[in-house]
Amino acid sequence: MYGKDRIYKKVEIIGVSPTSIEGAIETALSKAKGSLDKLSWFEVQDVRGHIGDDGKVAEYQVVIKVAFQIKD
Amino acid sequence: MYGKDRIYKKVEIIGVSPTSIEGAIETALSKAKGSLDKLSWFEVQDVRGHIGDDGKVAEYQVVIKVAFQIKD
Amino acid sequence: MYGKDRIYKKVEIIGVSPTSIEGAIETALSKAKGSLDKLSWFEVQDVRGHIGDDGKVAEYQVVIKVAFQIKD
Amino acid sequence: MYGKDRIYKKVEIIGVSPTSIEGAIETALSKAKGSLDKLSWFEVQDVRGHIGDDGKVAEYQVVIKVAFQIKD
Amino acid sequence: MYGKDRIYKKVEIIGVSPTSIEGAIETALSKAKGSLDKLSWFEVQDVRGHIGDDGKVAEYQVVIKVAFQIKD
Amino acid sequence: MYGKDRIYKKVEIIGVSPTSIEGAIETALSKAKGSLDKLSWFEVQDVRGHIGDDGKVAEYQVVIKVAFQIKD
Amino acid sequence: MYGKDRIYKKVEIIGVSPTSIEGAIETALSKAKGSLDKLSWFEVQDVRGHIGDDGKVAEYQVVIKVAFQIKD
Amino acid sequence: MYGKDRIYKKVEIIGVSPTSIEGAIETALSKAKGSLDKLSWFEVQDVRGHIGDDGKVAEYQVVIKVAFQIKD
Amino acid sequence: MYGKDRIYKKVEIIGVSPTSIEGAIETALSKAKGSLDKLSWFEVQDVRGHIGDDGKVAEYQVVIKVAFQIKD
Amino acid sequence: MYGKDRIYKKVEIIGVSPTSIEGAIETALSKAKGSLDKLSWFEVQDVRGHIGDDGKVAEYQVVIKVAFQIKD
Amino acid sequence: MYGKDRIYKKVEIIGVSPTSIEGAIETALSKAKGSLDKLSWFEVQDVRGHIGDDGKVAEYQVVIKVAFQIKD
Amino acid sequence: MYGKDRIYKKVEIIGVSPTSIEGAIETALSKAKGSLDKLSWFEVQDVRGHIGDDGKVAEYQVVIKVAFQIKD
Repeated sequence: MYGKDRIYKKVEIIGVSPTSIEGAIETALSKAKGSLDKLSWFEVQDVRGHIGDDGKVAEYQVVIKVAFQIKD
Repeated sequence: MYGKDRIYKKVEIIGVSPTSIEGAIETALSKAKGSLDKLSWFEVQDVRGHIGDDGKVAEYQVVIKVAFQIKD
Repeated sequence: MYGKDRIYKKVEIIGVSPTSIEGAIETALSKAKGSLDKLSWFEVQDVRGHIGDDGKVAEYQVVIKVAFQIKD
Repeated sequence: MYGKDRIYKKVEIIGVSPTSIEGAIETALSKAKGSLDKLSWFEVQDVRGHIGDDGKVAEYQVVIKVAFQIKD
Repeated sequence: MYGKDRIYKKVEIIGVSPTSIEGAIETALSKAKGSLDKLSWFEVQDVRGHIGDDGKVAEYQVVIKVAFQIKD
Repeated sequence: MYGKDRIYKKVEIIGVSPTSIEGAIETALSKAKGSLDKLSWFEVQDVRGHIGDDGKVAEYQVVIKVAFQIKD
Repeated sequence: MYGKDRIYKKVEIIGVSPTSIEGAIETALSKAKGSLDKLSWFEVQDVRGHIGDDGKVAEYQVVIKVAFQIKD
Repeated sequence: MYGKDRIYKKVEIIGVSPTSIEGAIETALSKAKGSLDKLSWFEVQDVRGHIGDDGKVAEYQVVIKVAFQIKD
Repeated sequence: MYGKDRIYKKVEIIGVSPTSIEGAIETALSKAKGSLDKLSWFEVQDVRGHIGDDGKVAEYQVVIKVAFQIKD
Repeated sequence: MYGKDRIYKKVEIIGVSPTSIEGAIETALSKAKGSLDKLSWFEVQDVRGHIGDDGKVAEYQVVIKVAFQIKD
Repeated sequence: MYGKDRIYKKVEIIGVSPTSIEGAIETALSKAKGSLDKLSWFEVQDVRGHIGDDGKVAEYQVVIKVAFQIKD
Repeated sequence: MYGKDRIYKKVEIIGVSPTSIEGAIETALSKAKGSLDKLSWFEVQDVRGHIGDDGKVAEYQVVIKVAFQIKD
């Protein structure tokens, strides 16, 4: 597989979750699945979040880059 | 609104303007409006420009990331 | 040409080559040509590679940003 | 709400937790609640931790920036 | 003035303006004036903004660090 | 303990886990335990992951720096 | 024009203006014009400023890199 | 001590000294002592200085982050 | 292969070559082969070089991180 | 040679080549030779390029810092 | 010496000293001398320190990368 | 003085000293004094050094940016 002509594209996506960083990543991937080719890997760029009126984390917002192979 | 499944996508766009940094940002947004879903926010990445023969700024070139929500 | 309304978009692409960094860049561009508008310039983001069983470079993987002008 | 005069301040806080990154963020927020105005959002700056004598994570230490709106 | 014992403190503040980057900086300073000692200088950290329903900039959000001298 | 001659060394290690970021950190530490002196602390450098055929996270890959004290 | 032997040099210059970021850039360029060859482009490196006794911006200080072609 | 709920806060301070980088750090700490809780550690962010009319260093200016534990 | 317990280690190595960047990478790998376990991938960190008396590149010096899997 | 008073200066130069990254570095050095003192070493800052109408690399543009010793 | 096959390795070490940054660097080197091949150069990565109960620097902690040539 | 048209230029210089970081900065400034206009301030970019055969620091090498005002 290595050494052959292939190209990948990376897109930057933000997923959210009320409970965890991993949850926000999965949200991003689950919705990206439909609109992009087969996903290959992701890289976390930024982790941030919104704080609710109770002073606790209301949602995690995780910025990831998702890479997928471009078909010929 | 917070805590629900949503994903955003960020794209990197360069707008230009002969007069100001703000003008270059507005140019980028005005043309992005047609081709992208509802735009949410932007982040300035880089500010640069071309210098004319008179040694003055001929145009500002502003690189921004534009974020917009992906519909289901 | 300068000073007029134009916008560019940058996308992040990874090309591979078994022989050289320049080869990986050309692979990325040759495949991007079909799916994107006229390409303007590129910026190298990252150079990495896979190492084969013989301990030599099996392929160079070069991450570039490719910029192209968006038509009206 | 947008377009009106508002200012936010960001402060850098480190929270700890023996079990998870999310736990360390919640610790930081729960103690910051008392001393700061209504908290708006946070940004993770750094994730690190202490390793116990058993070679396992003894505590996660997460550096965050917390933003809150300054009242007039 | 130089060479004497002095210390400065920097705080991170976000100001907003519907019209310009300079306006957002002035907003941040005008509100900081009351709560901080005499302000000395500022450093722009980040420029971003919210996009309105009309696809134009609704407000500029500028993150600055403001430095002020701490009195004995 | 402070102020005495001590030196620490940092090594860069990548651990994986199918379920969480914390799990990947623990994997890295558990295997590092045997080959390195007593571990002191770790710093997360990068969080990334592989995406499976079902479009979900197949494994988290976390790059950490692990610090340990060098004995005389 | 592309593909021929040319070299450019970049120098780092700081311009000031009491009114705007764009003004500070123009100041830098207007004075650089005399001492350097034909200027080609600029890149903004840093935006900062001095705060006056009234708590307002006394001057913007913009650090730019200016590029110009070196003649044979 | 590890694994218990604690939070730390970091503030950014600039100290000066006519003679050395270490002196500037000590100045920053000696004045911070009064206004902040018990100081824990510091991290050097930036080292710069003013040059006198004789072309020598007139003062070192060292930007540090100082961390201190917040009491309940 | 994914999802199983594995750890990788990264080491930083500098290779040189009188002729090319690729050559310097291969030098680094060829010598690393003996002293390290099976090499997996590399990441270019820095490219620099020495200039000879004739004003030409005397050698390329390429700093890479090499990753290899640690056996149980 | 070490331990004696010497100072070096670094300048930022951009060289181009239609064929390779190494070629662009050599172009930069060959033209810098005339106008600067004896060159010592270089550091690659950025690699980018222009894309021709055929979608291939028209020229590589490599930004380097060149260091040379300043004579007394 | 230049142009020949050589490789260097860099390791990350932290030295401490109660009195100065230079002292912490020398501590790191003096202990590294025994366990590593002939040391070539070092690069300072980070300067930080512990603050004693008297509010003064209890020890400087300097993170350096040490490079040494790997023998055939 | 503030608010008037002035421009500054920054140049990158490396000074060395066998004894201290401060010594290397002073070396850089003492030699720069002759060839540049009145120096204003400096910013430390990098601290590194050469290690002698005895495994101790043979010289500190400090990279600084020196700023000076350009006369009309």
